[in-house]
Amino acid sequence: MKIFIKSIPALLLGVCSMSAAAQGMPVYLDETKPIEERVEDALKRMTLDEKIAVIHAQSKFSSPGVKRLGIPEFWTDDGPHGVRPDVLWDKWEQAGQTNDSCVAFPALTCLAATWNPAISRLYGESLGEEALYRRKDMILGPGVNIYRTPLGGRNFEYMGEDPYLASRMVVPYIQGMQSKGVAACVKHFALNNDEEYRHQVNVIVDDRALHEIYLPAFKAAVTEAGVWGIMGAYNMYKNQHNCHNQWLLNDILKGQWRFDGVVVSDWGGAHDTRQAVENGLDMEFGTWTDGLAFGTSDAYDNYYLASPYRKLIQDGTYTEKELNDKVKRVLRLFFRTNMNRNRQFGSLCSEAHYDAARKIAAEGIVLLQNKGRVLPIDTLKARRVLVVGENAIKMMTVGGGSSSLKAQHEELPLDGLKACLEGMNIEVDYARGYVGDITGEYNGVTTGQQLADSRSPEELIAEAVDKARKADYVVFFGGLNKSDYQDAEGHDRKSYSLPYDQDKVVEALAKANRRLIFVNISGNAVAMPWKSSVPAIVQGWFLGSTAGHALADVLTGRTNPSGKLPFTWPASLNDVGAHKLNTYPGTWRADKKIIDEEYKEGIFVGYRWADKEKTKPLFAFGHGESYTSFRIGKAKASAASITTADSLSFTVSVTNTGKVAGSETVQLYIHDCESSLPRPYKELKGFRKVYLQPGETKEVTITIGKDALSFYDDKAASWTAEPGHFEALVGNASDNIVSKVAFTLK
Amino acid sequence: MKIFIKSIPALLLGVCSMSAAAQGMPVYLDETKPIEERVEDALKRMTLDEKIAVIHAQSKFSSPGVKRLGIPEFWTDDGPHGVRPDVLWDKWEQAGQTNDSCVAFPALTCLAATWNPAISRLYGESLGEEALYRRKDMILGPGVNIYRTPLGGRNFEYMGEDPYLASRMVVPYIQGMQSKGVAACVKHFALNNDEEYRHQVNVIVDDRALHEIYLPAFKAAVTEAGVWGIMGAYNMYKNQHNCHNQWLLNDILKGQWRFDGVVVSDWGGAHDTRQAVENGLDMEFGTWTDGLAFGTSDAYDNYYLASPYRKLIQDGTYTEKELNDKVKRVLRLFFRTNMNRNRQFGSLCSEAHYDAARKIAAEGIVLLQNKGRVLPIDTLKARRVLVVGENAIKMMTVGGGSSSLKAQHEELPLDGLKACLEGMNIEVDYARGYVGDITGEYNGVTTGQQLADSRSPEELIAEAVDKARKADYVVFFGGLNKSDYQDAEGHDRKSYSLPYDQDKVVEALAKANRRLIFVNISGNAVAMPWKSSVPAIVQGWFLGSTAGHALADVLTGRTNPSGKLPFTWPASLNDVGAHKLNTYPGTWRADKKIIDEEYKEGIFVGYRWADKEKTKPLFAFGHGESYTSFRIGKAKASAASITTADSLSFTVSVTNTGKVAGSETVQLYIHDCESSLPRPYKELKGFRKVYLQPGETKEVTITIGKDALSFYDDKAASWTAEPGHFEALVGNASDNIVSKVAFTLK
Repeated sequence: MKIFIKSIPALLLGVCSMSAAAQGMPVYLDETKPIEERVEDALKRMTLDEKIAVIHAQSKFSSPGVKRLGIPEFWTDDGPHGVRPDVLWDKWEQAGQTNDSCVAFPALTCLAATWNPAISRLYGESLGEEALYRRKDMILGPGVNIYRTPLGGRNFEYMGEDPYLASRMVVPYIQGMQSKGVAACVKHFALNNDEEYRHQVNVIVDDRALHEIYLPAFKAAVTEAGVWGIMGAYNMYKNQHNCHNQWLLNDILKGQWRFDGVVVSDWGGAHDTRQAVENGLDMEFGTWTDGLAFGTSDAYDNYYLASPYRKLIQDGTYTEKELNDKVKRVLRLFFRTNMNRNRQFGSLCSEAHYDAARKIAAEGIVLLQNKGRVLPIDTLKARRVLVVGENAIKMMTVGGGSSSLKAQHEELPLDGLKACLEGMNIEVDYARGYVGDITGEYNGVTTGQQLADSRSPEELIAEAVDKARKADYVVFFGGLNKSDYQDAEGHDRKSYSLPYDQDKVVEALAKANRRLIFVNISGNAVAMPWKSSVPAIVQGWFLGSTAGHALADVLTGRTNPSGKLPFTWPASLNDVGAHKLNTYPGTWRADKKIIDEEYKEGIFVGYRWADKEKTKPLFAFGHGESYTSFRIGKAKASAASITTADSLSFTVSVTNTGKVAGSETVQLYIHDCESSLPRPYKELKGFRKVYLQPGETKEVTITIGKDALSFYDDKAASWTAEPGHFEALVGNASDNIVSKVAFTLK
Repeated sequence: MKIFIKSIPALLLGVCSMSAAAQGMPVYLDETKPIEERVEDALKRMTLDEKIAVIHAQSKFSSPGVKRLGIPEFWTDDGPHGVRPDVLWDKWEQAGQTNDSCVAFPALTCLAATWNPAISRLYGESLGEEALYRRKDMILGPGVNIYRTPLGGRNFEYMGEDPYLASRMVVPYIQGMQSKGVAACVKHFALNNDEEYRHQVNVIVDDRALHEIYLPAFKAAVTEAGVWGIMGAYNMYKNQHNCHNQWLLNDILKGQWRFDGVVVSDWGGAHDTRQAVENGLDMEFGTWTDGLAFGTSDAYDNYYLASPYRKLIQDGTYTEKELNDKVKRVLRLFFRTNMNRNRQFGSLCSEAHYDAARKIAAEGIVLLQNKGRVLPIDTLKARRVLVVGENAIKMMTVGGGSSSLKAQHEELPLDGLKACLEGMNIEVDYARGYVGDITGEYNGVTTGQQLADSRSPEELIAEAVDKARKADYVVFFGGLNKSDYQDAEGHDRKSYSLPYDQDKVVEALAKANRRLIFVNISGNAVAMPWKSSVPAIVQGWFLGSTAGHALADVLTGRTNPSGKLPFTWPASLNDVGAHKLNTYPGTWRADKKIIDEEYKEGIFVGYRWADKEKTKPLFAFGHGESYTSFRIGKAKASAASITTADSLSFTVSVTNTGKVAGSETVQLYIHDCESSLPRPYKELKGFRKVYLQPGETKEVTITIGKDALSFYDDKAASWTAEPGHFEALVGNASDNIVSKVAFTLK
């Protein structure tokens, strides 16, 4: 038989050089080349299937790279306060690993309350390092949705009510994180201001409120911090879901702001292929996330931006134009993160990260009230301190939804106080006081911690009162927790009142002991009908891993509190615009599928509403006391007028007139004396935190430009600063303006 | 009340620089510093707990880094032939991911059969890139245990019977892999030559066989390739488990060979804390691997090198001396792999890797017999080809134990032949022929593929014979598979015969069609009582992802086969030293816990035994035919004598005397004409594969030095080369020496 061989393939070459290195480095892997060049090079090597693959998830929290080309996978993770423990590939259950404990940092409301951008940078850097060690390329946060109602279940994850404060605080967080080669993903863009019907809400808001209140922090994240990712919100705006919203994503984010990063859907926030293709979504996550919706592991291939999109390209409905734009954004994100070989390895649970967590907590705790100087606890005289309340013994790093963590350590308030006081021979006793509800669940997985107690409310109060009578101090740790319908994702609070009849406990304790300290653990304001009868009130937030020590430090005076409220603390919901105007939670349409929520209060959110309506909050925006006293001098302007082209500086002296060192935050608000459109009485446009030894004086200078004087002209669809008279209002709280300087814009 | 604060901690500083970068780069992270300096720096920063942590597993396949210091976790993975799919954190079940499919490369027996070190380098580089993409820092392979008996269940993972061939082939594999920043972990050190009682076997072997036969490939891996990891074997030597064996690990590996890498226990191979501490184990994996042995997740803390070791340090039994040595080795490994920021990202399932797999397969397939030039199939004349046998349709990348893979693609032999022949209008029919057994299980997880067929053996044979009568060619794909007691980890084969009565099918087919081709799919020799009646026999190995195409290429002549057997193919077990001397599987001691297996054949393994006993194998070591013919000329030496200080070169011409291009492998064996100790008649000491066009001649030069003439002097405990007369035997198989050159060692 004849042998007939037409060609001898190269693979027959027994002895030849086969080193892959000899093939030369392609441009997309060449770090000496500009990123845009590498993006183009990688793009042109990718097949249609590979392009489709990188714009949607492959598992709960990851999306594929291009394995053939050596472009790595991309891993995201919740959430703003620490690196979420790993879940299984396609299930919400935790993967049961032992390598994913983390440092839990204080919730973002606490960070905002520090009014300290350097602390925010430290937060971003520290969390970035933890993420890097855990091999996460993007952290799903921070959140900067505006605090519009104290019922908002997710307010604790955000940075308060003021667009300027949130802007100044979000920028360094993002810069710090991204300096580590880990992307931030600012969320939830936009108008996701309540949780209860987040999937059904269609927000109706006027353009002024949109641009002046709800967008500025996102804009700062994009245009100042250069954030690499942004997450679309679940809700709708103009009847279109925000994960693929023409106005928000195409016109504003990518058009006006020139965002060059990636728009990520919130998990399950995409609803339509054509809208997703056309209206700005770049990466789809969480759709049909149980992987079982179609009974197969192909669930991810059924994503709106997967097979359905591929079909529309193959049938000619779309060219690859939109796809290529999305893929280029994804590749750009890759080169910034998982393909950035200059990244270090990060670190996890380091001393530096615990120090950072404690610094953030120490600076964020707010001393709301301190009548008769009950605080700090006099550790030289006190012999017995009674601690009351479930929140003294309840973990708060677990629960609350996607921000739930597996903290390596969580110092509980009772333990923190014991560690601090028992070393000084002060007896620390505990009474439960009340029992909270069962904990919540999130994506079908039970979260949080249940602490059972079979006694009746009356018995618990009787015990607490009895012990309170014998104590030198009573410290009540109450407030909310991370259970559903409290400070937790997915629902809003059902009422402004403290849950579990805590008011009764507080009132009984106030009668039993005059040195009662109420520490409110929450991310939200709560009703305090007993405010006048409780001498000391501390806002203790959700403080993360170092909660107990940070609180003990403040309560015993080791830390002089310096936090300032990042939101207005109303006396009742009736003092909140959204509630007063009956705009929350909105009106269901006839089909019961969509609920229209009209933000009728417009730009008058928070202290803007309080100023306008002359309500008297329990505690004002920017309020926060100290164990020392400060004198803020008379502010001076660098000039009597300003043009739209230059800036104006205000200088004021701050003196520590008390006996201990401490920090004060000088706040500068602008009052527009005359305007063609209605404006808030005042708006925060500058602040500066200074640390002073007793007797020390420092000059503080705050500089403003045209932006500080501008409002959004909805007719012209642009920002404008109208010439005329203005006043700079300087103080240490929105309700404590101590100096005014008039000036004009020419 | 007075406020009394003793000190204001630094964390009160509201405005200060907090950049971690400002703290300066520690030496251990500074890539400009030498590794040893970085190792020392990291070591001195680690706590006792952290040191203990890095020397044992935290999950099935990972060990912790030092998260506090930013030293990453370390991830290992099986196995020699591809990157094993991920299992759950602490369970053997696959994690159900969709990102862990891989290219399955041919089994290492096939690689050894290429006799091509450049191909081995390509193998290591390609697998290293796949591992890197999958974020694995160490691949648990290659294996170089010597093929001592064809019953060995794991021979398919090793590189044959000859220490020289295995040495030459293992070095480039390791170098290629480690050039990518991925550690190889050569295994199983040592004397793990059968599987059946691998946990109970105590090997008794003389020093000459140990050093001349069983250790050389490991020694080459260490001293030539500089391998970063080595895995201890399950079995015992001198009554001590090999994962903590004074002689093998301390004296030889770390003493004589100066190994500076890490000794890893085979999974569950550690048995004693003190021995592990003292006898060279560095990293413990797999002990109590189900994580449930103690009913807690603390199982890893109960490892021999975990809490029990810590206690012995804390109670003063040990200082940290041994611990520091282990930790330094681990850190050195880290700096070489997971802390090597020069690593690229790797790639997975790339065209280049598929090409590599196909090249390896193409060069490794061995044409054992081709009477009447039945092969290659004459595709111009053939009209109908019958394929018979379960192995034509059975996946072989799944099963077999730890080397089981989740291949992205596996081209089955039938599909490969169809793809090749049907395009040429040749009809390909199929008959099952026989039905194999159910597949195996490994660590409680079922592996492999079950292909049911309810027909009787007689019916199956009748069908095959009937179809064979109508075919131009019959290609029978038989052999072994990856089920337990075949080519699979954990057990040995129960008999040398082909399973499932394949002999009957072959014999029936041989009578029905004179153009019968038997393709043996296995990693082991099998009995072939029908050899003389089957014209063509091909050794098809386990070829991985490209099996079907690679086989079709050989069968149709697109590839001219060039593989050579890396082991002797005996006619019966009686021709194998281990069996002839009745030394396998050994003798149980009275306590039934240990089985002593004395390697009575000593250095006479494989062709050394065949030469000594003058047996006639079915196919000899080094045998492999071609579709062309070669003429090897008369060998010439560069000198008539050699000293122990210099080298001697042998040159021989090779001419392709046939009609198609092809590769021939020139083999050089050394015959020691006189010796003070018994020596094998000949030993392989050089080889060279050359590719030749028809009519082309090439000169091949093979150079030897003193090593090639040396034997291990067990009295002196050292290698020695005795002056005297030697012969260089040159040929293309161990049983086809065509040229002899005499020379002397002075």
